[in-house]
Amino acid sequence: MKNTSIYRAPLEDIRFVIWQQNQTEEWLESYCPWLNRALVDQILQEAADFAELTLSASYQQADKQECWLDPAGKVHVPESYGTLLVSFREEWGDRLKSREQGGLGLPPLIMYAVLEMFMGAHPSFMTYVGFNEPALQLLNRFGSPQQRETYGPPLAEYRWTSCLCITEADAGSDLSRISAQAERQPDGRYLITGEKRFISAGMHSLTENMVWFVLARIKNAPAGVLGLSCFIIPRFDNGQDNQVRCSEVVQKMGLKGCANTHLRFGEHGNCYGYLMGEKENIGLVQLLSMMTPARISTGIYALGMASSAYLNALNYAHHRVQGKQFNRAMSAQAPSLPIIDHPDVQRMLSEMKALTEGCRALLGKLGVAETHYLQAKKLDNSQVAEKQLAFFELLTPLVKAYCSNKAWVVAENAIQVLGGNGYLTKYPVEQYARDCKILSIWEGTNHIQAQFLLRDKLGMGLRDTHGLQELHQRLLTFTEQAKMHTELKEMAEQLEQSTILLDSSLREIGEYVLRGQMLSVPACANILMEMVAEVIIAWCLLEAASSASGCNDIRVREGKLSTANYFIGTSLPMTIAKAHQVRYLLQSGSVSNAAFARNEVDV
Amino acid sequence: MKNTSIYRAPLEDIRFVIWQQNQTEEWLESYCPWLNRALVDQILQEAADFAELTLSASYQQADKQECWLDPAGKVHVPESYGTLLVSFREEWGDRLKSREQGGLGLPPLIMYAVLEMFMGAHPSFMTYVGFNEPALQLLNRFGSPQQRETYGPPLAEYRWTSCLCITEADAGSDLSRISAQAERQPDGRYLITGEKRFISAGMHSLTENMVWFVLARIKNAPAGVLGLSCFIIPRFDNGQDNQVRCSEVVQKMGLKGCANTHLRFGEHGNCYGYLMGEKENIGLVQLLSMMTPARISTGIYALGMASSAYLNALNYAHHRVQGKQFNRAMSAQAPSLPIIDHPDVQRMLSEMKALTEGCRALLGKLGVAETHYLQAKKLDNSQVAEKQLAFFELLTPLVKAYCSNKAWVVAENAIQVLGGNGYLTKYPVEQYARDCKILSIWEGTNHIQAQFLLRDKLGMGLRDTHGLQELHQRLLTFTEQAKMHTELKEMAEQLEQSTILLDSSLREIGEYVLRGQMLSVPACANILMEMVAEVIIAWCLLEAASSASGCNDIRVREGKLSTANYFIGTSLPMTIAKAHQVRYLLQSGSVSNAAFARNEVDV
Repeated sequence: MKNTSIYRAPLEDIRFVIWQQNQTEEWLESYCPWLNRALVDQILQEAADFAELTLSASYQQADKQECWLDPAGKVHVPESYGTLLVSFREEWGDRLKSREQGGLGLPPLIMYAVLEMFMGAHPSFMTYVGFNEPALQLLNRFGSPQQRETYGPPLAEYRWTSCLCITEADAGSDLSRISAQAERQPDGRYLITGEKRFISAGMHSLTENMVWFVLARIKNAPAGVLGLSCFIIPRFDNGQDNQVRCSEVVQKMGLKGCANTHLRFGEHGNCYGYLMGEKENIGLVQLLSMMTPARISTGIYALGMASSAYLNALNYAHHRVQGKQFNRAMSAQAPSLPIIDHPDVQRMLSEMKALTEGCRALLGKLGVAETHYLQAKKLDNSQVAEKQLAFFELLTPLVKAYCSNKAWVVAENAIQVLGGNGYLTKYPVEQYARDCKILSIWEGTNHIQAQFLLRDKLGMGLRDTHGLQELHQRLLTFTEQAKMHTELKEMAEQLEQSTILLDSSLREIGEYVLRGQMLSVPACANILMEMVAEVIIAWCLLEAASSASGCNDIRVREGKLSTANYFIGTSLPMTIAKAHQVRYLLQSGSVSNAAFARNEVDV
Repeated sequence: MKNTSIYRAPLEDIRFVIWQQNQTEEWLESYCPWLNRALVDQILQEAADFAELTLSASYQQADKQECWLDPAGKVHVPESYGTLLVSFREEWGDRLKSREQGGLGLPPLIMYAVLEMFMGAHPSFMTYVGFNEPALQLLNRFGSPQQRETYGPPLAEYRWTSCLCITEADAGSDLSRISAQAERQPDGRYLITGEKRFISAGMHSLTENMVWFVLARIKNAPAGVLGLSCFIIPRFDNGQDNQVRCSEVVQKMGLKGCANTHLRFGEHGNCYGYLMGEKENIGLVQLLSMMTPARISTGIYALGMASSAYLNALNYAHHRVQGKQFNRAMSAQAPSLPIIDHPDVQRMLSEMKALTEGCRALLGKLGVAETHYLQAKKLDNSQVAEKQLAFFELLTPLVKAYCSNKAWVVAENAIQVLGGNGYLTKYPVEQYARDCKILSIWEGTNHIQAQFLLRDKLGMGLRDTHGLQELHQRLLTFTEQAKMHTELKEMAEQLEQSTILLDSSLREIGEYVLRGQMLSVPACANILMEMVAEVIIAWCLLEAASSASGCNDIRVREGKLSTANYFIGTSLPMTIAKAHQVRYLLQSGSVSNAAFARNEVDV
């Protein structure tokens, strides 16, 4: 049957990552005895159907309708979202819950696969419901018993939605500048004033209530980030309007169904907030714990959109007939070919396939490490838990930054494969490009991810961190095995060489840091982040080729082998160029601003 | 005075390329005795003012208003375009004409500088007037005396506008599939039927008339591209409606002020066309001569938008205060910095500056070669003319493809520098990304440019073409000189090494072609195009640093030196990776389609 939906669920590759590449059956039933392969496959199939048939049906319409603020202050969202939210709640609300809450208790690897399909099929809609689960984790970890009781159930049941409110006009990447104020009242509540900006899905009428987690400064708290506290602010508090107003719905390049709001707290009346866990000045620590799921989600959005852009381009390339074989171009007799037969279209599709499947495998590795970490913690096996956590934390900024950078590249290629049609709003690929562009910015810009990786997870090249040890150990184990297979040997050797290059770049950075040249870290962070990601993606794709060698399906065997070959043959050589770039950036030091201060700028 | 216009004319760098880097004063007055430096500088200043104050004023508004087709078949364009067209005609119509037509007769180098500012300031508006000059060249070259007399003056005076009509639903990259029909009538006119698609600025009511140059097949003409003829089709012919209708105005990702139309000829009544030059079946040759200016224009659009995206980001980075120095990030006392002081913002700005100024210098080289070619032809110096033409033709596909690829990269970086604000329609940078994306597709996709370069201009690596000889000669002369300067020596050596790598990749391709593996050409063409472009851009930037060493202004000296350093230190190493990619693509051959044919696709 012809699939006419905009979104195309990559079910086959999702299953490959779960069952084939990560051998999930081996540990699934010991970790989640209530699950088994058949049940998981059924959930994945139903998620794919929900993504293709329900969610993606209004993907393009929502982009056209956008969100807007009426003069009475009401935020309007695309008309389909009311029905979508009901469907989501009814079909998936219970199932996505944890085991304790009566849900399926899906382990991270499986949960991420479901979310990839939902977030790829309708990313802007998913921003409305996407923060409920992290909000529950936040409440469970830091909330008082009463707070957990009040806000937990309506969030778990998707009767309310939730947002983080951090950013202000002058506080984007720099949270020390947050100026929203809280003043303690005799009854223990706090009066909140201030404006938060760029709050995604920050106001709507889809649910009876919503709750904001707001970073603000209590009167007389210390300056800087150590004087910030986290407040729980319901929109309606025991039925009373809590005086939070949307002052603007900004117009954006994409993700137009996501109401990006500026919110004013307590401007025209008293807005009351509840101090999270009743502890002052630890708001940053509390909310930063939420950054991990937010970063992973960003990578999942990126993967979901990139995958659909790729599959749309692939489908188009199979059906669009245009042009003849290169050496028969002038022959009137030569047949016109489907464009997938042209080498340059194959090159673009190969790149898209490698990036998409590589990012999916990267996310798979993160999901497996997270699952094993949670299991080891439960079993009090602190040695395993520590290793798995270190690896999980190493992968998190990569999933956020690398996947979001590459979603843009995949969308660009998808537009190019479709040619003039790729530029039309009639086809979805230009919308994927527009929708995914925010992902390199929100939840900490990709440079902040790269800094975090290089400084905190790679020890600024000064020491062998736990995360780095884990990476080396895993790479070594894998390449030793892979070198014993004739088909994989050469690729495994190239992977080893790239790893050596990466290590030597890291050491060079460390040497500069040792000499006190700390600015070497932010100067090189982005390049280094990409080097690490490319080494890991190459490993992931080679591992996929290796584990596919046992598949009966020749398409999968050939596909995985040629994808690994393509990435290692074309992307991995970039690490050579990047090692040069790191050296250049270290040597050149900070660029003189004078070089930029041209007449054209008002300075 | 604070410049508040969206577009920021890069007048200082434009003048640098003209006067400093290309020493235009040395040849200007011998070639164009009616011009001198003061006059040219005045024209450039007035063009900058027109771009900033008049054209760019409605850049964002036009994006919001878009173009649309009403039920009566009328195409509506943004409301400012009527006034803009009058201003353009009155202020620039005469001046942009050739000397023979009573205009300023600007040589290509200067004309392109003016167009860069106009096309960067309001690209979609410029599509309405941008084809008049190429159309005049077409008429002068191929039209009959009567055709020149009828259509020349109203086009020269911008009383009418003009478009090329080539693409059809099934004929995009492959013109052999064109099916529009022409049938000769007893009076010598032709009855035209068929539909043309994706015609930019293809229908509007801004002018009293317009004229289409349409590729169609005369009844009983040979199949394939050698059976196509070019017809001149006025919208109103001697006051009579010539039965051309717009059937659709497509909705696009960007360039929304440019009405992208589907046009139906002779559907409900007789549409008459006039055979260009009264010669049948040479339409492709006639229209292909127009592809050269169309390709150059595409590169100029790209440069204009990239430059404005860069200057907007640069200006923002000077004024936006956010974040502290990396090693004092946690100090409440440390001052917040303008983001231009952060190394990663400097990295992005350096890349944007290098790409923008590099592309401008590349276009400068093309403009100089074209000017010298025209002069040599006038002087009957065929040896010089041949060399300059060969070099000009080598550069043309690079200007089209490399500049359009990199405009997208520059726009991406500009969005990232602006952070969350970069994603808002309030700032222009996201619009530059959307507007420029068509440039890698129209006027022959960038792959078609790359094929053309590798096959026709680089001899598929089989022989030393005139263009390649010229390139080598010029590179050799330059590097020999540059190596004598201490500051430039190392960079010149890196440039030599990259040239050697490029040559060896070319030879490898040639070896595969010799062995009959012709598909190596399209497989490697894009990578090779980028390698050639990067070598030339590195040369251009190094040459700029060299010629800036004589400037009094330390900002220019430092700026040009650090830009050359940056590009050679970070982009030129990519040629190493690209040499690996070429080798991989040659060895791997065509990717098996089986590798792509996944379940997710309807095949």
